[in-house]
Amino acid sequence: MNDHPAHLLRRLVAEFLGTGLLVTVVVGSGIAASTLSPDDVGLQLMENSIATGLGLAVLIVVFGPVSGAHFNPVVTLVDAVLSRVSSARARSSTLAGYVAAQVAGAITGALLSNAMFEVPMAISETDRLSGGRLLGEVVATAGLVLLIFALTRTGRGHLAPAAVGAYIGAAYWFTSSTSFANPAVTIGRIFSDTFAGISPASVAPFIGAQLLGAALGAALTALLFPATN
Amino acid sequence: MNDHPAHLLRRLVAEFLGTGLLVTVVVGSGIAASTLSPDDVGLQLMENSIATGLGLAVLIVVFGPVSGAHFNPVVTLVDAVLSRVSSARARSSTLAGYVAAQVAGAITGALLSNAMFEVPMAISETDRLSGGRLLGEVVATAGLVLLIFALTRTGRGHLAPAAVGAYIGAAYWFTSSTSFANPAVTIGRIFSDTFAGISPASVAPFIGAQLLGAALGAALTALLFPATN
Amino acid sequence: MNDHPAHLLRRLVAEFLGTGLLVTVVVGSGIAASTLSPDDVGLQLMENSIATGLGLAVLIVVFGPVSGAHFNPVVTLVDAVLSRVSSARARSSTLAGYVAAQVAGAITGALLSNAMFEVPMAISETDRLSGGRLLGEVVATAGLVLLIFALTRTGRGHLAPAAVGAYIGAAYWFTSSTSFANPAVTIGRIFSDTFAGISPASVAPFIGAQLLGAALGAALTALLFPATN
Amino acid sequence: MNDHPAHLLRRLVAEFLGTGLLVTVVVGSGIAASTLSPDDVGLQLMENSIATGLGLAVLIVVFGPVSGAHFNPVVTLVDAVLSRVSSARARSSTLAGYVAAQVAGAITGALLSNAMFEVPMAISETDRLSGGRLLGEVVATAGLVLLIFALTRTGRGHLAPAAVGAYIGAAYWFTSSTSFANPAVTIGRIFSDTFAGISPASVAPFIGAQLLGAALGAALTALLFPATN
Repeated sequence: MNDHPAHLLRRLVAEFLGTGLLVTVVVGSGIAASTLSPDDVGLQLMENSIATGLGLAVLIVVFGPVSGAHFNPVVTLVDAVLSRVSSARARSSTLAGYVAAQVAGAITGALLSNAMFEVPMAISETDRLSGGRLLGEVVATAGLVLLIFALTRTGRGHLAPAAVGAYIGAAYWFTSSTSFANPAVTIGRIFSDTFAGISPASVAPFIGAQLLGAALGAALTALLFPATN
Repeated sequence: MNDHPAHLLRRLVAEFLGTGLLVTVVVGSGIAASTLSPDDVGLQLMENSIATGLGLAVLIVVFGPVSGAHFNPVVTLVDAVLSRVSSARARSSTLAGYVAAQVAGAITGALLSNAMFEVPMAISETDRLSGGRLLGEVVATAGLVLLIFALTRTGRGHLAPAAVGAYIGAAYWFTSSTSFANPAVTIGRIFSDTFAGISPASVAPFIGAQLLGAALGAALTALLFPATN
Repeated sequence: MNDHPAHLLRRLVAEFLGTGLLVTVVVGSGIAASTLSPDDVGLQLMENSIATGLGLAVLIVVFGPVSGAHFNPVVTLVDAVLSRVSSARARSSTLAGYVAAQVAGAITGALLSNAMFEVPMAISETDRLSGGRLLGEVVATAGLVLLIFALTRTGRGHLAPAAVGAYIGAAYWFTSSTSFANPAVTIGRIFSDTFAGISPASVAPFIGAQLLGAALGAALTALLFPATN
Repeated sequence: MNDHPAHLLRRLVAEFLGTGLLVTVVVGSGIAASTLSPDDVGLQLMENSIATGLGLAVLIVVFGPVSGAHFNPVVTLVDAVLSRVSSARARSSTLAGYVAAQVAGAITGALLSNAMFEVPMAISETDRLSGGRLLGEVVATAGLVLLIFALTRTGRGHLAPAAVGAYIGAAYWFTSSTSFANPAVTIGRIFSDTFAGISPASVAPFIGAQLLGAALGAALTALLFPATN
């Protein structure tokens, strides 16, 4: 938990790689699913959601001991708010580093998927805007934040890989937006005009809804799991 | 385990949110599945059942430490009966509060699903009555109750999220009723005329079968796992 | 670990219920799968195998502390052989009781599935005999026995629910016989002329192959995990 | 951790059986999937990937305590490099024995699948060469190596079965090559002209990419999880 540069650098590398590979999983499995199961969008989403749930769990296992495995700016932000004074991680320079590493990783991950599947580089044209989908993002992000900080505040961080993977695997289905729930991943998904893509015009409203959801999730955490100190 | 009002309030909020989000998962993933996989009802049910199993496990992880994560009036009722004298939770006022929170949550969860998927508000017209399906509800609920209290009586409550999620994921398939097994969720599912809906006329017989199954499950628990005191 | 009648009775009830519900899961989910996904046998098998893997894991969780959750005559038999002198369980009267409870449970479980799904009572006409499938049963049963007693001999019995459930979920696919691997369940599956059924004429060769596989699995266990005493 | 011949023999048997059964799972479930779901390659891959993920997890559970459950020459090689001086396992004779057992097991496992499914013996004609797929193998193998040695270096080897199984289940989808990630398994898969086969001409480039990925994974391990001694 010290914070000297070498350690911080490793943490930033972990956030870059973890967020990047998360986008690779989401985008790559989306390309495979839509190519291999062309006749049923539900089957494509099942293939995509199972791969993402499993892959995300593994990424948290790998990078959790290094960086905490946030992979998500709203998680980093809520972590800074909820654990304010007591943690060195909350310092704003670290926070900015985390978010920058996450966004850079997410974009790189989308490009890596395109390269593996030999898909031409293109900006996504998938318009995802609708009132229902924005509500979906609020719900998805609130649930994600509540889950993560419920685990933190009850000393059950070891359950995070399975629980967060399961949550996202389910949230692909029970939210109307297929649960982006992550501003960095949302930005990364601009850079692949494939199954999991999102057009630039949809991104800002999605991120707005995610921030609202994060605030709601943080409030529920404070209500249900008051800090012990 | 104390019982002063603030604590009870948190527990009721947890039951309201947990039962509500359980119905959101069931109904929401049902809407997504039937929309995206229009040609195969089995594929729809697989998408619906996997999402529900994963989502239910996560909800138990999140709310278990607060309220015990009953989310189900028959679980609350059997808990009161089996742990009678020794637990403050069994007091009738708490029991009534739990059931009220569960039913209110379930209805709210169905409405949230409708809103996310922009489905018009309507009462379900899905008639689910048949002798075989009522037998299915008896079996489904007996198994659920036996599972939960087998875990409780052998000190393995930490297995509940994975085990209950897996149980429901399987019971969608091995019972003819797709395993409602929960009076509050059954009532909530009236309020969405979509894949997971149930018409009001089917509800009372379903709840009757669930109560019978709960009694059977409690009897099996008492036989196989006699209380240690 | 004592062996007075009441305790033995509970163990036999657990074996009866556990084996019975295992067949209910196998046969019931098979009926649901073939009814709801009529156009793709692979999809049916996936629905059937996922439900079975999850359901079996839960049954081991529930009944394991009572009877050891054998649910399978070859497991009971190998357990008696490998733990010979040291365990009261190995006594032949207990062994006979276990096997009788397993077979009676398996038949009852098939009948319960038929009742829930309102399928007429009929003996299965599904011929499953072929040289490749019998080899499949040898492999499936050897692997199951090796898994179970590897866990026992390394003190990792707590992994049995997840590991055995995962094993069967996979063995539906990697063996050509869909992995019956259990004489009691094989007999039970005679009594439903549906997806998971087996004609009486195929049963004896299947059980012979299972016994051969069990011997192979026991030999591999003895080779790789020599008893510590 | 001693190294007398009997112990080493058991370890080699474990590597032979484990790698062999892994290929049996991959090839056998591939044959079942392509036979039973002829109309949708994505559905075939989902059936194949779920069976493989579950089966691999079980094989690590079974053989891990005996041999470490490498089942993969690049894992054995990286293990020798990363733990160099301190471990008897790293001795080159042991290394050669492990690799030989893995390759012999892999070929045997393919032949066993052919026998169970009564598929004629034939060399695969499936050409898998492309730049994107080779990049996929680099990514798949780097991720596998990083995962395994992240677990080792953080003392969480007990998570390996679930984590490695989940990783491969996801990597079937997010890499364009369906994630062979294993030279022994790649060689084994030559010997079945079915869904999971690979033509001999594709093998050497695949293994080259895997070695490159292994080096990358080892480098990332050294960067993120520096050895504690």
